[in-house]
Amino acid sequence: MASLHTDQKYEKELQRLRDRVVIMGGSVEDMLDGALRAFAARDADLARAVIERDRGVDQLEIEIDERCLQVLARRQPVASDLRFITTALKIVTDLERTGDLAANICKRVIELKQLAPAEFELPIGRMGAVAQGMLRNAIGAFIKRDAPRAARVMARDESVDDAYAELFPTLLQHTSGDQESLTRSQALQSVGRYIERIADHATNIGEMVVFMVDGEDVRHASLRPDNATAH
Amino acid sequence: MASLHTDQKYEKELQRLRDRVVIMGGSVEDMLDGALRAFAARDADLARAVIERDRGVDQLEIEIDERCLQVLARRQPVASDLRFITTALKIVTDLERTGDLAANICKRVIELKQLAPAEFELPIGRMGAVAQGMLRNAIGAFIKRDAPRAARVMARDESVDDAYAELFPTLLQHTSGDQESLTRSQALQSVGRYIERIADHATNIGEMVVFMVDGEDVRHASLRPDNATAH
Repeated sequence: MASLHTDQKYEKELQRLRDRVVIMGGSVEDMLDGALRAFAARDADLARAVIERDRGVDQLEIEIDERCLQVLARRQPVASDLRFITTALKIVTDLERTGDLAANICKRVIELKQLAPAEFELPIGRMGAVAQGMLRNAIGAFIKRDAPRAARVMARDESVDDAYAELFPTLLQHTSGDQESLTRSQALQSVGRYIERIADHATNIGEMVVFMVDGEDVRHASLRPDNATAH
Repeated sequence: MASLHTDQKYEKELQRLRDRVVIMGGSVEDMLDGALRAFAARDADLARAVIERDRGVDQLEIEIDERCLQVLARRQPVASDLRFITTALKIVTDLERTGDLAANICKRVIELKQLAPAEFELPIGRMGAVAQGMLRNAIGAFIKRDAPRAARVMARDESVDDAYAELFPTLLQHTSGDQESLTRSQALQSVGRYIERIADHATNIGEMVVFMVDGEDVRHASLRPDNATAH
């Protein structure tokens, strides 16, 4: 088993895998950044450009999934490597969904195009900024195997949830009977919901990173074939 | 490699893994069923009982994760077995989150306790029934490796999304200025949102099952060590 770990080709495969997750994470961060800027500026062109990037993120998910499966099938990664790969498998799902949600924000921006931003929308932008920071830290924590940083991500989720809970009465207060006002409120409510879910995904990534890092020590022994028990 | 596949102990481990996913899926289905019944009947006792079950589901997720890691580390599953295990790893995340959402519905039911169900809430119950069917089919499709059944799950997601989109204007119409009415609308909106997300999780499971089943044939060749390429 030790020889595998010193195998340069194997190390290179793991490094490639990590690099692809970094690229995917960066793409999703860019999409979210673009979506929030498009929302704040009602920039439909930027919104369309972000939506176009979603396909690339979807492809990265499939590629990283494949790469994880190949390393699992061809090498016998154990302990921290195994945990890294299986966490990567799970995390790319959250990243892909975050990309979808950024694209969804952009679709609403296109709907909102004609309607200038209102003062009461400002909390949505603030929620977005918090979610963006959470996502950045979650991805960074995974790459650096940084459990404290991951735990900080989780701690911020509540503030986004609270801000989202306050959105409904705010929108209610600012929705008049006409169709235009209703359309705007529905779109804004959706944007708030997408941001809240992005924060959830960042939180989920944070949880998985904590589990990955903390699990490595305690798990190292139990994963050795001679020590493992079948249930 | 062939000897591993005929290894009875290995087959038994895979069977155990499958059994645990069945148990976890069944628990989550029960939680959702209880949550929807508690919602329809404003049954706070049932709601509390469902919330208590969430811990068991969380533990099952950790246990199945562990079991997947052990099989991956100790055996060298390839092709369809590898795909089954890595799909299980991803699916339990969706199941665990579905359990959380069922518990969230119950928390809202407890808040709503004092407020009798209104006629205009009926679409929420119907959304719930559709989401429940989707979840059942998604879990069944995974267990039976049934891609057509999984594809049918995905086809129903849009109807839940549409029903959810209609909820906001309905609630708006039925919310008066007083605090009790606002509290009810907020709780109902949350319940609708949780159901919509459960349908999303079922859809995600469906997608992964289609990918798992369809990927098995095409992937079989490329996963053989002598045929795999490093990138």
